[in-house]
Amino acid sequence: MYVIGERINGMFKNVRRAIEESDKTVIQELAQAQVKAGADALDMNVGPAKADPNEAMLWLIDTVREVTDVPLAIDTPKWAVQQAAVPRVAGQGIINSCKADLDQLEKYMELAVANDVGLVALTIDQQGVPADVERRVELGAQIATKAMETGLPMERLFIDPIILPVNVAPQQPENVAAALQQLKLLSDPPPHLILGLSNVSQNCSNRSLINQTYLVMAMTAGLDAAIMDALDTDLMNAMITTELLQEKMIYCDAFLDAYRMRA
Amino acid sequence: MYVIGERINGMFKNVRRAIEESDKTVIQELAQAQVKAGADALDMNVGPAKADPNEAMLWLIDTVREVTDVPLAIDTPKWAVQQAAVPRVAGQGIINSCKADLDQLEKYMELAVANDVGLVALTIDQQGVPADVERRVELGAQIATKAMETGLPMERLFIDPIILPVNVAPQQPENVAAALQQLKLLSDPPPHLILGLSNVSQNCSNRSLINQTYLVMAMTAGLDAAIMDALDTDLMNAMITTELLQEKMIYCDAFLDAYRMRA
Repeated sequence: MYVIGERINGMFKNVRRAIEESDKTVIQELAQAQVKAGADALDMNVGPAKADPNEAMLWLIDTVREVTDVPLAIDTPKWAVQQAAVPRVAGQGIINSCKADLDQLEKYMELAVANDVGLVALTIDQQGVPADVERRVELGAQIATKAMETGLPMERLFIDPIILPVNVAPQQPENVAAALQQLKLLSDPPPHLILGLSNVSQNCSNRSLINQTYLVMAMTAGLDAAIMDALDTDLMNAMITTELLQEKMIYCDAFLDAYRMRA
Repeated sequence: MYVIGERINGMFKNVRRAIEESDKTVIQELAQAQVKAGADALDMNVGPAKADPNEAMLWLIDTVREVTDVPLAIDTPKWAVQQAAVPRVAGQGIINSCKADLDQLEKYMELAVANDVGLVALTIDQQGVPADVERRVELGAQIATKAMETGLPMERLFIDPIILPVNVAPQQPENVAAALQQLKLLSDPPPHLILGLSNVSQNCSNRSLINQTYLVMAMTAGLDAAIMDALDTDLMNAMITTELLQEKMIYCDAFLDAYRMRA
């Protein structure tokens, strides 16, 4: 599993305040803690901070770069911010994210190819999030086809079939799992399949339990990447144990520690 | 999910001692606790107790019957014990278990039909536990075909593709999950698919975590019954949350409690 740590996000109050006050310590500690916990990459999201979004994103990147070399995912819907920030993570970063409309795919994929970075593409278009499995797979196919046309290698493409909160869209967890199984067959090698995992439990009780359980279900269906809370030990343990049971690592009594020390 | 509580088993020292000393309290408390925790049925296994296995099984059944009406699963490889005990659970019990050899299937299915009880049939024959997916499915087909011939309804048949400990057979969790997906397609309605879940973590560290994770994986693949530790709250919570995410129950903030109070 490719784990993108979600915690450097202006939606969290301490991060928002750190961005507004240019307090490096909070950001750098969160970066180091997530990498130590097993994150392979770190999401960078300015969120609703009052700072200039362009400057704030560049500051976040530079601040995190001082303490870790892991890939950074530039998480913003603002095209201008992506254009400014992506060159700064060239060669190993990730654009997060674009929608599946053809004109947007072309623009974002060209930016990804030019800077040799990954791209998260959502199975969503002007009609919004698909209610069913079929439309998710159609949009996934559209994304994969466009990647081939623009020269974005499959190993740099992350397709996100979009999970919604189980309390408002109870049929979507099963639909997304079914879509994952089909999206995995789109090409050989397949694109990465990713989810913004925490969304499944938005405004629910027992959030960590719901996240853990859906992560195992989605991994069983073919998920191989997630934007998730790497600081949630139970969640990371569920992920590691799924990898053990999928024979992606060899059992030893200390298999949880062994995974975290693999880097 | 149909949960068969595994704790009344002579492998546990307190149960073994209770059987040898005819101490009803230990057994009855274990029965009530498992039902309260969400068990739909209770497994009855005399284990290695020194008592006469026939008498011990009948005593277990009568002892548990004094405190609960849930179905009881007669868990012994001894045919003579099954013949003596099954009539005592006629109409709602379960025979646990028989192998997939044709002569054994016929004998056990006739006993099940005659007493109107369920039957757990293992995908194992004289060659032992299959190493691969295909042989599990072949033996599952043999079991389902024999059930149709002998008049055992699919809703009373539980096929068990047999999970082995991940530390000695690391490829089996994935094989069993793949077998579950195929066994589910054997007939319409399909047979129940069951596992003796705890075996996946035998002699492993982090047993509950491995059991929880594999339960979610197996349910995602089609498992709809398990012999498992209903007293493991984390395990039961993982199961309930999977049912929530499979849209088998409706979300409410107290969904864990709601499941346990459904009876």
